[in-house]
Amino acid sequence: MRQPSPRMTLVLGGARSGKSLHAERLVEAHPAPWLYLATAQAWDDEMRERVALHRSRRSADWITRDVPIDLAEAVAAATGPVLVDCLTLWLTNLILSEADIEAASAALIEACDRAPGPVVLVGNEVGLGIVPDNALARRFRDAAGRLHQRLAARADHVVFMVAGLPMIVKPQPGAAA
Amino acid sequence: MRQPSPRMTLVLGGARSGKSLHAERLVEAHPAPWLYLATAQAWDDEMRERVALHRSRRSADWITRDVPIDLAEAVAAATGPVLVDCLTLWLTNLILSEADIEAASAALIEACDRAPGPVVLVGNEVGLGIVPDNALARRFRDAAGRLHQRLAARADHVVFMVAGLPMIVKPQPGAAA
Amino acid sequence: MRQPSPRMTLVLGGARSGKSLHAERLVEAHPAPWLYLATAQAWDDEMRERVALHRSRRSADWITRDVPIDLAEAVAAATGPVLVDCLTLWLTNLILSEADIEAASAALIEACDRAPGPVVLVGNEVGLGIVPDNALARRFRDAAGRLHQRLAARADHVVFMVAGLPMIVKPQPGAAA
Repeated sequence: MRQPSPRMTLVLGGARSGKSLHAERLVEAHPAPWLYLATAQAWDDEMRERVALHRSRRSADWITRDVPIDLAEAVAAATGPVLVDCLTLWLTNLILSEADIEAASAALIEACDRAPGPVVLVGNEVGLGIVPDNALARRFRDAAGRLHQRLAARADHVVFMVAGLPMIVKPQPGAAA
Repeated sequence: MRQPSPRMTLVLGGARSGKSLHAERLVEAHPAPWLYLATAQAWDDEMRERVALHRSRRSADWITRDVPIDLAEAVAAATGPVLVDCLTLWLTNLILSEADIEAASAALIEACDRAPGPVVLVGNEVGLGIVPDNALARRFRDAAGRLHQRLAARADHVVFMVAGLPMIVKPQPGAAA
Repeated sequence: MRQPSPRMTLVLGGARSGKSLHAERLVEAHPAPWLYLATAQAWDDEMRERVALHRSRRSADWITRDVPIDLAEAVAAATGPVLVDCLTLWLTNLILSEADIEAASAALIEACDRAPGPVVLVGNEVGLGIVPDNALARRFRDAAGRLHQRLAARADHVVFMVAGLPMIVKPQPGAAA
């Protein structure tokens, strides 16, 4: 039996909290090349700009693949360090395509467990505001929370970003290792 | 003069952050039976489903009481470990019934102080999004923030849940006990 | 070359998380008089009430100045401990007056670096809810996140308030000083 990967990290935080940059630095601590699995689908100019900005920031040692849906397969095929950016847009894509979120989540976790190198996953924390009026937003919020919990339970490291700085959630600071 | 109870815990966090499950585990660390004070009023199917799910998860050693409004009285009448799930729905019920929130909060804190056994209270953190357009939502958000502050000032332990994992807020990690 | 000020603190948190009171206590740990730079513009009764409440709480050793826009100049002119309350309303004022946010942010950071005494800045964390429908709200959320990141990178101390209690974000708990 395989142990859970000792190199799985979950980077959570709000909008503009520095999640992606922090996650890139974590991956870049390992030998290149690094695989960037981008889940964003550039529906509009606002998104296209952001994707272009993120890409221009990354060095030539990054290989970028667009994986709006088939994330588990892409992680499973990785041979070195992987960055998943981000879970939130992946979930959005799954919901919009009416995919089976439970099955997709289970497959992603399985792929992370089997990955030969470190996997860093980025997710937006979206559950700390007033309950949304919109039923789809509530459904999305629930799905994101459940996915983050399942990944956090398997991850070796979980951080919560505040203003570009990581707060360590796991392993619990002060707890015996 | 009674000292503040040494066994009062406040479990805060966003939607789907694992608050209830963590709070149940904290209570179950004490000898059964455990009293579950449920403040949810099942207005719709979404809520009925959630209530049924939570209830089915709990063992037979839990005694469940529905207390949409009279929470202070129910805590005061407890003879062993108590879980209050959750403050957020209780506040909602108070606001909808035009009750005096200040008086109800003071009575709850007094009851927690006098409880003979440990009391664990669950609350949703709702103040970390954009300011809501809706005046009622802003009023609710203010009331929740004030109640959490008052309870946190009295509590021995306060945790902030992220993806199912507790971050210790109080006592402050690294501070002398 | 001047070193970054060793006495710059950023107090972040949600609505009604106790940010202002905590920030006042931090400033009051230094010798009076203390300068309170208030960025709120009292557009309506709700805001006027809150401003009056905050002001009535502060002792006579506080000198209050209203600076809806010219915050960098006001910080630069300070001769002792300063509290900026808050960045969020300042950013709102900048956006509404179509000011250059990048230039204003750079000027503020420069002023904080040069301040002769401690500077404590308060900001609302607004990026942890569902993505707002409203483009202006998204723009505001992005600007707030970027400003907080820039200030946090320079600050000696960053705290994230939960229910009136500070969680230490920087310096990282457990890390070597």
